[in-house]
Amino acid sequence: MREISGKISDSSVRRLSGYYRALGELAGEGTETVSSYGLASRAGSTPAQVRKDLSIFGHFGKRGTGYRVAPLRDELRSILGLNRRWNVVVVGAGNLAHALSSYREFRRQGFEIVAIFDNDPAKIGQTRDGMTILPMATFQDEARKHHFDVGVITTPASAAQDVADQMVRAGIGGILNFAPHPLSVPADVSVRNVNMAIEFESLSFALSMK
Amino acid sequence: MREISGKISDSSVRRLSGYYRALGELAGEGTETVSSYGLASRAGSTPAQVRKDLSIFGHFGKRGTGYRVAPLRDELRSILGLNRRWNVVVVGAGNLAHALSSYREFRRQGFEIVAIFDNDPAKIGQTRDGMTILPMATFQDEARKHHFDVGVITTPASAAQDVADQMVRAGIGGILNFAPHPLSVPADVSVRNVNMAIEFESLSFALSMK
Repeated sequence: MREISGKISDSSVRRLSGYYRALGELAGEGTETVSSYGLASRAGSTPAQVRKDLSIFGHFGKRGTGYRVAPLRDELRSILGLNRRWNVVVVGAGNLAHALSSYREFRRQGFEIVAIFDNDPAKIGQTRDGMTILPMATFQDEARKHHFDVGVITTPASAAQDVADQMVRAGIGGILNFAPHPLSVPADVSVRNVNMAIEFESLSFALSMK
Repeated sequence: MREISGKISDSSVRRLSGYYRALGELAGEGTETVSSYGLASRAGSTPAQVRKDLSIFGHFGKRGTGYRVAPLRDELRSILGLNRRWNVVVVGAGNLAHALSSYREFRRQGFEIVAIFDNDPAKIGQTRDGMTILPMATFQDEARKHHFDVGVITTPASAAQDVADQMVRAGIGGILNFAPHPLSVPADVSVRNVNMAIEFESLSFALSMK
């Protein structure tokens, strides 16, 4: 992997994810090279933005031939950290956890759900997608066994901070938070929030303004 | 509702959603007034940002007493378009659709799933959360019956644009897209993308860089 100079913004990383996905589609169609225009139109970006984003990693599409699909895709996979396996733990065994654990695409990208926890006595001990739902009381013990890389929080808002604290204590470096509650974590822990209520409200606001 | 001058950015709207949620918690605890500091700390914002965001709507917390919780919450509900009912249609009857339709909080905020569609003959006709899964061929007919306000796409990437085209044709003004594929829609249609793969990849990138 090439040396990357400077800090990459989160929005750049999101665009790289988009290019990676578009290159996967192109590879699947047997396409060997793609122009910045072709890549941009698949990924919902602009040709200038594609050229700028990829130049950070030393890639410059050749005029007339463009980018080579397979090598660029391999490199983006490596840059995005998708060339290894990440142990994922989910806390909150609801329908969203079920949707995540049954989504094969995640596993294909290297995200492997290795444990699911809940606090509800009615759920603990049940089997979900081949995994037994574990009680939160055993979280730190299980963390020592499995080495959790990424934590996913799908609990109600009121439980989210306690769960995040447990995840931080267990050495988890990245948290995906679906609970509608902001989390306080140390600066070296990465948090991404997916708040579906906010997405709906942003739409109802836009529709109300029309 | 007060007259709003100027354009409100999407990030402002997201923060208003956060304040609305925090005010709901405060109201539930019987709190009658809150300072910009108190509201900021609950909503993951800063006191200066809270004052700036709310001043757009003519609200100025009084020094020493702060904002009145109940009236401010009522006004934010109205601003966010949550004081009415929105008919939501979901296309793609997978686990994510199930997670959405079983999430009571959405209904409480006025988002009512009125129909679920799929293209899979094995799913069509099945009942999900009290609704019969309908074939996509009947989408326009059902749209005329129900008046869909918001469309949710939970299909695979390859089907997403076709579904979006159908939604636009049916007069839907807001689309929440969970498919990992960018959508082309007319400028007067609002789209919000929730791409869980990108969230995971943004985390694996951050963890890889550590």
